[in-house]
Amino acid sequence: MDYFNYRRDKLFAEGIEAELLAKRFGTPLYLYSRRTLIEHFNKLKRALKPVKPLICYSLKANGNLSLGRILVKEGAGLDIVSGGELFRALKMGCPPGRIVYAGVGKTAEEINFALDKKILLFNVESIGELKLLDKLAGKKGRKQKVALRLNPGVEAHSHRYLETARLESKFGLGLGEALEIFKIRNHFPALNIEGVHIHLGSQISDPSPYLKALGKLSSFLEKLKGFGVNLTWLDLGGGLAASYRAEEKPSSAEDFARTIIPLVKKTRLKLIIEPGRFIMGNAGILVTKVLFLKETGKKKFLIVDAGMNDLIRPALYGAYHQIIPLKKKNVKKKRFEVAGPICESGDFLGKNVLLPGPSGGDFLAVRGAGAYSFAMSSNYNARPRAAEVLVSGRKAILIRKRETYQDLIRGEIIK
Amino acid sequence: MDYFNYRRDKLFAEGIEAELLAKRFGTPLYLYSRRTLIEHFNKLKRALKPVKPLICYSLKANGNLSLGRILVKEGAGLDIVSGGELFRALKMGCPPGRIVYAGVGKTAEEINFALDKKILLFNVESIGELKLLDKLAGKKGRKQKVALRLNPGVEAHSHRYLETARLESKFGLGLGEALEIFKIRNHFPALNIEGVHIHLGSQISDPSPYLKALGKLSSFLEKLKGFGVNLTWLDLGGGLAASYRAEEKPSSAEDFARTIIPLVKKTRLKLIIEPGRFIMGNAGILVTKVLFLKETGKKKFLIVDAGMNDLIRPALYGAYHQIIPLKKKNVKKKRFEVAGPICESGDFLGKNVLLPGPSGGDFLAVRGAGAYSFAMSSNYNARPRAAEVLVSGRKAILIRKRETYQDLIRGEIIK
Repeated sequence: MDYFNYRRDKLFAEGIEAELLAKRFGTPLYLYSRRTLIEHFNKLKRALKPVKPLICYSLKANGNLSLGRILVKEGAGLDIVSGGELFRALKMGCPPGRIVYAGVGKTAEEINFALDKKILLFNVESIGELKLLDKLAGKKGRKQKVALRLNPGVEAHSHRYLETARLESKFGLGLGEALEIFKIRNHFPALNIEGVHIHLGSQISDPSPYLKALGKLSSFLEKLKGFGVNLTWLDLGGGLAASYRAEEKPSSAEDFARTIIPLVKKTRLKLIIEPGRFIMGNAGILVTKVLFLKETGKKKFLIVDAGMNDLIRPALYGAYHQIIPLKKKNVKKKRFEVAGPICESGDFLGKNVLLPGPSGGDFLAVRGAGAYSFAMSSNYNARPRAAEVLVSGRKAILIRKRETYQDLIRGEIIK
Repeated sequence: MDYFNYRRDKLFAEGIEAELLAKRFGTPLYLYSRRTLIEHFNKLKRALKPVKPLICYSLKANGNLSLGRILVKEGAGLDIVSGGELFRALKMGCPPGRIVYAGVGKTAEEINFALDKKILLFNVESIGELKLLDKLAGKKGRKQKVALRLNPGVEAHSHRYLETARLESKFGLGLGEALEIFKIRNHFPALNIEGVHIHLGSQISDPSPYLKALGKLSSFLEKLKGFGVNLTWLDLGGGLAASYRAEEKPSSAEDFARTIIPLVKKTRLKLIIEPGRFIMGNAGILVTKVLFLKETGKKKFLIVDAGMNDLIRPALYGAYHQIIPLKKKNVKKKRFEVAGPICESGDFLGKNVLLPGPSGGDFLAVRGAGAYSFAMSSNYNARPRAAEVLVSGRKAILIRKRETYQDLIRGEIIK
């Protein structure tokens, strides 16, 4: 479900013809649909209404200030993983009481920054971090709320880079280890350990891993009660899939809600969830221009002006993104590799893409490019990063300027 | 061969203790050794002296202005692949007559920029590009020198993303196709097609693929002579390996030279080569600080402050980088996964790394981080990009400032 749809033969971003925007703002261009991201957020909010969750949008999916601010205004909290993301969150006007902070490698500087801003919750991933946080909070005379990130040992069956709760993962604490920490919780006088956090991974399209993890959590919580530990927060992390394939049934907020609500209710804890991709994945497309049509003996290539520096997901994860023309043509479709201008064989946006014979100057849209797309972009091959434009109805506004050559060398000092 | 070596138990960058630099400039930190890159450049220059090549350093490996300028001063030309790299090349003070421009996706704007600057040679990768270049050069009343990039169909046996001369690759023109172009070369009145270019891929440690490709080229050149075509330039591209493993015999400039010189001489063409990794690969290290030591049931992790946003090669290519401590300790070595702070399982710098029990606050060096390292870095997880420091003897100078949080949101316009 999104608001990038054809009217007759032209692709529209909400109420505006996408090609007009490509020409006005240039390519490669990230286009976002305000309505798409708001509706995804509200779908989840509605489905989970019986347990009134704090929905913390996962900023790492796409940290653009304007996009985050839309969600914050809708009532979202934010899930952050670095000092830079805290900086972004505050610029978005997010109340610190709605910010939760995860990540295995928080530095002392980052922890101090978050303590000073009085965020809601640190999701702590190791004993080393717990000790450091206790020390730093103690120095400030603070009592900081903390959740322990648990690794329930559940496989999410997505890409190996996107699974984060296998036992051999760097994330979280084993259940046994966490139990030991709860037993000695008064060794951390500056902390209130009052929550548990899990995060199973990313692009999880079937709610059963959540069911499994919640099962393990429930018996863990029972054990805790036996030691007189009563918690406040249950943070189930993110991971809900976005739909990348046209033929896919989108992962449903209702299915997810139906699965988890009874178990969450039983815990009597306050629920936090951290969706990123689910909200943002389908809310963006990457518009690119065809530079050359190139046929080799074995293959047809469309060389386009967006590359792996703009969108690394195909090269890094073997991710699939649907690629469609901004203007439909009534000609026979052929199979192309859609390849970028970067000097590397891994620089492709799609393989075996069926397209109606585009030619130089035509525009293509790479769908599902709202999450983990611009956020991972780089200046590889000395390519300025793309512009980002937000569409709302018939209005389009530039929310991030295209980088210039001058931006490439910012901070460099020639000696 | 490089100038990052231990003196007693401390790692030095040329004449300076690396840990002093880590503390002075902070981490993650890219450290480069001037002497290492100059010596690699000169090794190649010496070995190829009999054929006096134009050595065009491949800017995409590392485009830092100060590093490139060192090579330009040594007499190097530059191999560029984008308008941004041309901008960098000019800032380095490289004479345009020593610049060659490759890449499958040159835009009209980029071509015009390079025409205006009067670069030496366009390495043209498709008929579409040839036509466009002819049109644009014609408009400017120019006669532009061109080499055709040929795809000789040679497998370089490195990572599939780093091979660029398989027949199914997006790069270059098939030999048959190129022959047809040479036959109709007068259809491109604004161009002098006076060279051929090949590029077999990257990290090629054995000169035999060059031998194979030169064999195919020789008979191709013979055919051309049959049609009355006499060329000037033979561009053999880059691809010479850097050595990433301590136990490896470094790929030798002499071996490469010995292999190609007789064949190059026979062609009577002027030689261009485009080394990137060979010159820069071992000229840089990435220094990172250990944040936490973390043991799970199955593994020991060192959580460090450099992540896949700083160095994506392990995640993207499964690349190996040697990781060593800045200070040797006389304790038993154990195996660690060295993992970054990014919230992704693909965020590791090394697996099964044998290290002498480092603890929080200790520093590690990731070797072989001169090429395709900073160049591919991003702001993923809202992490500012690292600082870059150049060491020359006992002198260290900042050549790129660490990014700030403010830099992260540059260009964003909040609505």
